[in-house]
Amino acid sequence: MKKEETIRILITGGTIDKEYDPLTGELTFSRSHLSNMLNQVRCKIRVILEEVMLKDSLRMMNEDREEILKKCIHCLENKIIITHGTDTMVETARMLGNNAKGKTIVLIGAMIPYAFGASDALFNLGCAFSAVQALEQGVYITMNGKIFHWDNVRKNKESGEFEELPHQGIRSPGGESENQQI
Amino acid sequence: MKKEETIRILITGGTIDKEYDPLTGELTFSRSHLSNMLNQVRCKIRVILEEVMLKDSLRMMNEDREEILKKCIHCLENKIIITHGTDTMVETARMLGNNAKGKTIVLIGAMIPYAFGASDALFNLGCAFSAVQALEQGVYITMNGKIFHWDNVRKNKESGEFEELPHQGIRSPGGESENQQI
Amino acid sequence: MKKEETIRILITGGTIDKEYDPLTGELTFSRSHLSNMLNQVRCKIRVILEEVMLKDSLRMMNEDREEILKKCIHCLENKIIITHGTDTMVETARMLGNNAKGKTIVLIGAMIPYAFGASDALFNLGCAFSAVQALEQGVYITMNGKIFHWDNVRKNKESGEFEELPHQGIRSPGGESENQQI
Amino acid sequence: MKKEETIRILITGGTIDKEYDPLTGELTFSRSHLSNMLNQVRCKIRVILEEVMLKDSLRMMNEDREEILKKCIHCLENKIIITHGTDTMVETARMLGNNAKGKTIVLIGAMIPYAFGASDALFNLGCAFSAVQALEQGVYITMNGKIFHWDNVRKNKESGEFEELPHQGIRSPGGESENQQI
Repeated sequence: MKKEETIRILITGGTIDKEYDPLTGELTFSRSHLSNMLNQVRCKIRVILEEVMLKDSLRMMNEDREEILKKCIHCLENKIIITHGTDTMVETARMLGNNAKGKTIVLIGAMIPYAFGASDALFNLGCAFSAVQALEQGVYITMNGKIFHWDNVRKNKESGEFEELPHQGIRSPGGESENQQI
Repeated sequence: MKKEETIRILITGGTIDKEYDPLTGELTFSRSHLSNMLNQVRCKIRVILEEVMLKDSLRMMNEDREEILKKCIHCLENKIIITHGTDTMVETARMLGNNAKGKTIVLIGAMIPYAFGASDALFNLGCAFSAVQALEQGVYITMNGKIFHWDNVRKNKESGEFEELPHQGIRSPGGESENQQI
Repeated sequence: MKKEETIRILITGGTIDKEYDPLTGELTFSRSHLSNMLNQVRCKIRVILEEVMLKDSLRMMNEDREEILKKCIHCLENKIIITHGTDTMVETARMLGNNAKGKTIVLIGAMIPYAFGASDALFNLGCAFSAVQALEQGVYITMNGKIFHWDNVRKNKESGEFEELPHQGIRSPGGESENQQI
Repeated sequence: MKKEETIRILITGGTIDKEYDPLTGELTFSRSHLSNMLNQVRCKIRVILEEVMLKDSLRMMNEDREEILKKCIHCLENKIIITHGTDTMVETARMLGNNAKGKTIVLIGAMIPYAFGASDALFNLGCAFSAVQALEQGVYITMNGKIFHWDNVRKNKESGEFEELPHQGIRSPGGESENQQI
């Protein structure tokens, strides 16, 4: 355990922050719940909350990912948690994994909004907190209680679960697989 | 990330598993909620749940801690999470730290029961899951979003928060401090 | 207080019974929560639960309303609660008001699903329970803490609230207003 | 349905307003949740909230009941809801029934605090809202989905449920029973 470091949380939206709009019957964003979540769980670590955007990750464009990357690179902190929609979380993780070096970055989201009953949001946030403190530099996703390296994870759209990539007997010498030697 | 290993969760009671008894108006234990918690958060890691006891940690005796120690030593798993009351969690962690070698053991609890509103239980459980997977051998407590080594933590009874021991300029050559060289 | 009578609850769907589907991110029906709700609130009155349909009330057709009417007329009970989507609740109430005589019928719904946080479902259900026991024969809606007679209520789509019809100094001799002489 | 009248809610404490104190592990009062409850359920009826006291009803003394009685008699409203601990709710109802004439007064409480999971508080509050609007003058308790007249109710301490008094073949001509001719 090194000396306690401040953690920066970059908020980008996703199911974790969605709310039910009783007038339209649809899920929407109004404001992030991260601050309430941290109060509820009695988090006492130094945290900087930064709302970068509040987007459904299916609507994230390349420029959104560029903005997230810039925030990661330019902030002073070396430990970063990113809240993110699950649908394209792997894509953002890959982009960060290839470009944001020298920091520990953990992406999380939720399958059920924090504001609803029976959400997985607080558990996933807890997973991210320990992971960002305990893991060495790199880009990770913590979902379903597991820790995934950015280049060895996919979302199974049928089950809604994150899982490791299928094992390949022999790795090709190029492409993504070269990053899997962790 | 090494190959995924099964995590054993030893349930010992504490606030995390307490319920409100509407007939007596008191907090009691009926059964552990850990199984429900893991379902709610969509945990997909292999977990073995073992209910060792359901006790308020103020009522834990030496023989209870001995039993927990035995479970830690004799189980096949090398990654162990222990749910525990917060009042004597540090005491159990110290006993395990001195006696249970060669495994990664993480103790957690909650300040508000899982069954109540606004609980910190799921967050703390998430912290334990990543910690037990990412940390090297040793005994740890994850509370308030922080990771504590067993020999550098106390519960502040006034704030209800876990904190590191006050820093000492020069360490005495004997006693507990010899374990702090982490 | 007359002798306690059995209450029949006709379940027709609506927001009160909707759930969040984490795979599609949409609101859906899987099963009614009324049984769970009655357990939670420790209801000890004799109740018969009948699931007539699980529909968004915007998708209710005339034949659906005919079916609800038949259930009201042919059941043995004289006290009936109907759970219903709010969007066309007034329409169903009007149809029942014109055709189901001799019983006390109370329609309710919710603006936020029971399964979500901060729902109005249990309160509305409570309003219906007392209303159906205390009111004389007729068809009523209990929403927003108010009791409305079926021919003097509308849903304000902008506020999402139920309200009485605007007062008219002189009532026209025909049309709906002839039912308003309550 | 007569013209809508303002409802006065007298808050006296009881389980409905209790909270869990994480530092002591005990149930305590800090502030009433009634205002939050009314917001959550989208109540749109005119309500005056008055916090008379925040007491466990086992600790209520005669002077507390006198104070509640005075509030009932002297307030302008004719429709009054009283939130109250369940243990001595029947006692307060009896005192009010004998002394507060000319108003509709409904007492409610909860077996599980509003602030906890799976509470009956909102349902009971809904029961009170319709009862106070629909019932004629008198003093009532609405618990477990039932409406009880003040002189025909007791709390079954074993089941925690409110129930009517056991039926007596012949009623004595005097005393409380004269009020049972409802």
